[in-house]
Amino acid sequence: MRILLVGATGTIGTAVMNELASQHEIISAARSEADVLVDITSPESITAMYQAIGKVDAVISTTGNTYFGSLQELTPENNEISIESKLKGQINLVLLGMNHVNDRGSFTLTTGIIMDDPIAGGVSAALANGAIKSFVEAAALEMPRGIRINNVSPNVVLESLNKYGPYFPGFEPVPASRVARAFRKSAEGIQTGQTYKVY
Amino acid sequence: MRILLVGATGTIGTAVMNELASQHEIISAARSEADVLVDITSPESITAMYQAIGKVDAVISTTGNTYFGSLQELTPENNEISIESKLKGQINLVLLGMNHVNDRGSFTLTTGIIMDDPIAGGVSAALANGAIKSFVEAAALEMPRGIRINNVSPNVVLESLNKYGPYFPGFEPVPASRVARAFRKSAEGIQTGQTYKVY
Repeated sequence: MRILLVGATGTIGTAVMNELASQHEIISAARSEADVLVDITSPESITAMYQAIGKVDAVISTTGNTYFGSLQELTPENNEISIESKLKGQINLVLLGMNHVNDRGSFTLTTGIIMDDPIAGGVSAALANGAIKSFVEAAALEMPRGIRINNVSPNVVLESLNKYGPYFPGFEPVPASRVARAFRKSAEGIQTGQTYKVY
Repeated sequence: MRILLVGATGTIGTAVMNELASQHEIISAARSEADVLVDITSPESITAMYQAIGKVDAVISTTGNTYFGSLQELTPENNEISIESKLKGQINLVLLGMNHVNDRGSFTLTTGIIMDDPIAGGVSAALANGAIKSFVEAAALEMPRGIRINNVSPNVVLESLNKYGPYFPGFEPVPASRVARAFRKSAEGIQTGQTYKVY
């Protein structure tokens, strides 16, 4: 398969690359240091990316920023970080990419455990994840040409514990390689509208 | 209780008014023909509304526009209708209203059955509803001063069947008065972080 991997330079993106690169042609996309550069908060940038790469069989998104901070510090302005990037950015990868995906291809987006298992400071991330999950479930039923769509919801990742560990007390970290297998399941499998929880 | 009802002039808002007006002081808010005028897509308008009305014990939102149309017609631009209004509008009612709600007060937002039971053309509404549900579940755990937050998820409403019936084939419509009781349950009860499904 020809697979576009958006967020290829991140911790999970790197693991997905390792999981899939030996058997598939991967086109990496990120804000820098990738085959094609993209800023998912810009619909124009997303459109330019799809025009540059041609048709693909799968689009995998392992990207999307979110705001972390207590509810009392959450404002309409900093909440936009999550809405513009993880929420709208990932949804626009689908809306603007549908005609660039081959018949029976797939989209796989990233959500996260915070939508099921809330943590302090995670309100903004939770709402972005919840939006993506509901989008995937509804969009799966209307996808043209047998195109599928799923999302992968990772727990806190072992390789990111230094950075995020304190936010996730008592959570069981998962290796990024295990999260990567859920993306393989989505891209190579036949299921659609699913949330693959890697908890 | 002193209750701010945003969306007071709509079908469900009118039913909530009928349900609560005899026992509570209701301040109606809407874009027109209400005690206080508000455009929930504008944070400045929300802030001005709260400053105009003083403290309340409960905020009930029965408002929020969404875009209806097939997935293939859904664009980043028309998807903004749902994101700006039902999603961000309702969330900003909470973020900007928290300091205007008395101790042990409450917020009650509106989601909808489409997030659980997708319909053709409902992708954009589904994602807005899913965001609100996840926001409510996470925010409930961080609310200050015993403030609670819930959401009511109505089925298609009997009184709106002329307008929305064709979108909901085989759905069991519910009277708006039944939806209104779920808002009473949220405002007068003790629960928080709940999704009251009126299906």
